[in-house]
Amino acid sequence: MTVEAEQAIPAVHRGEDEVPFVDIGDGNKLRVLQVIANEGLWIVENIFQAGYEVQKHRHTGPVWGYTTSGAWHYKEYDYVNRAGSFLYEPAGSEHTLEALEDDTRVWFHMYGSNLNLDAEGNVESVFDGPGTLEAYYALCDAEGLPRPDVVTG
Amino acid sequence: MTVEAEQAIPAVHRGEDEVPFVDIGDGNKLRVLQVIANEGLWIVENIFQAGYEVQKHRHTGPVWGYTTSGAWHYKEYDYVNRAGSFLYEPAGSEHTLEALEDDTRVWFHMYGSNLNLDAEGNVESVFDGPGTLEAYYALCDAEGLPRPDVVTG
Amino acid sequence: MTVEAEQAIPAVHRGEDEVPFVDIGDGNKLRVLQVIANEGLWIVENIFQAGYEVQKHRHTGPVWGYTTSGAWHYKEYDYVNRAGSFLYEPAGSEHTLEALEDDTRVWFHMYGSNLNLDAEGNVESVFDGPGTLEAYYALCDAEGLPRPDVVTG
Amino acid sequence: MTVEAEQAIPAVHRGEDEVPFVDIGDGNKLRVLQVIANEGLWIVENIFQAGYEVQKHRHTGPVWGYTTSGAWHYKEYDYVNRAGSFLYEPAGSEHTLEALEDDTRVWFHMYGSNLNLDAEGNVESVFDGPGTLEAYYALCDAEGLPRPDVVTG
Repeated sequence: MTVEAEQAIPAVHRGEDEVPFVDIGDGNKLRVLQVIANEGLWIVENIFQAGYEVQKHRHTGPVWGYTTSGAWHYKEYDYVNRAGSFLYEPAGSEHTLEALEDDTRVWFHMYGSNLNLDAEGNVESVFDGPGTLEAYYALCDAEGLPRPDVVTG
Repeated sequence: MTVEAEQAIPAVHRGEDEVPFVDIGDGNKLRVLQVIANEGLWIVENIFQAGYEVQKHRHTGPVWGYTTSGAWHYKEYDYVNRAGSFLYEPAGSEHTLEALEDDTRVWFHMYGSNLNLDAEGNVESVFDGPGTLEAYYALCDAEGLPRPDVVTG
Repeated sequence: MTVEAEQAIPAVHRGEDEVPFVDIGDGNKLRVLQVIANEGLWIVENIFQAGYEVQKHRHTGPVWGYTTSGAWHYKEYDYVNRAGSFLYEPAGSEHTLEALEDDTRVWFHMYGSNLNLDAEGNVESVFDGPGTLEAYYALCDAEGLPRPDVVTG
Repeated sequence: MTVEAEQAIPAVHRGEDEVPFVDIGDGNKLRVLQVIANEGLWIVENIFQAGYEVQKHRHTGPVWGYTTSGAWHYKEYDYVNRAGSFLYEPAGSEHTLEALEDDTRVWFHMYGSNLNLDAEGNVESVFDGPGTLEAYYALCDAEGLPRPDVVTG
């Protein structure tokens, strides 16, 4: 009994122009490359300007960050992410992002949700892949861009 | 260049007696088989008595349930899980568990966290693998059981 | 900006009768509950009769086995899987399955492929989720069963 | 019963200089950022020179490629990966990599093994994370570099 699939499954490519960055305020940018809702997977790329902050949050799944330009850090740690930095954020990690230089560019490969925490550590709001995709589409619409072909399977 | 590891990694076995069930109230039981904190993975087995309820919660990662005896359902759906039932709960699924028969036994293979929701849909509390493991150990201690050798890697 | 999805994703249930066991020879049985081809996920349940063997194989992803009746072991290890046994087989684990009692029933939750090894350790064949699903469908057809509604997303 | 872990798990950072590229022949380069052997996860970054080829292989788990400079393609497809390209290679995908420009730089986030195929489609060899890590360490030793602190959990 041979039980390997006959057919190879194709790889899926998106060029930089096919999935554009949109402005999320003050020159900070977002594009969403892939969301597999059932798996809790979301992959985005950001361009941050110096001073941009992301509210303290806790991850419920593992996250990886690949920085390709600029500089940013988590306020809770001493190290600085620069071009070529690799960052592994296990499930249960918790931190506050701050961009230190303009045009700081980072890929984030994420599983699970971001639990956004208030000063007392309570969950104030939740960010996840499907919600981020809806927001990205809305921002594309607002900028008059055609709906990008984000990979959703 | 051969780049497959020489050494096979061993499989890890736990017999039923090595990881005992503890009472979580009214004859309902829990045992925790594995927690990989970094991955957000937690695997538990429950024995529920008729009428047991789990607060409405939303999953941030995928979950699988394998039922081996009894009957239970999610109040939001018509189907009933019985011996041999397979249940796939994608990330983003949301429901309220109710046991319908005594000695209902279910394996849960879970990624991510349970966001426990109040009547307005706000996150009231969060359950995750490491927290559940701490609770399990405390319940073992309280019953005078030796600390079980839960798989944590 | 609220970025959590509004809509909860439904959970997916299959009762034991909806996804039947088929004979894979000598009273040994297989049913395939779920295959997510893109992720390399495949979930099956087996019923083995005493003496049944699975060729030595190496896993390329992690695998979990939940035994609910009977007895089986890997020839390479001393422990025996019985009702209530939990088994974690990391990626890179390698072993030869042998059933020790009739009506040994096991759920397998698997990522990746089985690399079936000959006596010299060469890869003789490969089993994966999509190939196993094709084989399962063919066996259902051969038994005159309607095509079962295996979860494929 | 509160069952979320008290302690946040720290994130793990590696700067570009901490995990150096090594030469794998003809100016092509590799560095290995992370291997979680049990999960089948391996994350590498490559710098390819024009004309570099990787033997046709099949993936047993999903793979993602983030290109940050240069140009490369799979011979089986028309599209070209350039700076900003996103590539999703599902489990079961199969292809032959060729670099088209010098200093082509790509992050690969991989689950499972590469099954290297001969002209008849037989598995000639297997590459996995632990084996690639061993090879990387050996190349570091050969270049007289200190052993890099690859993330292995």
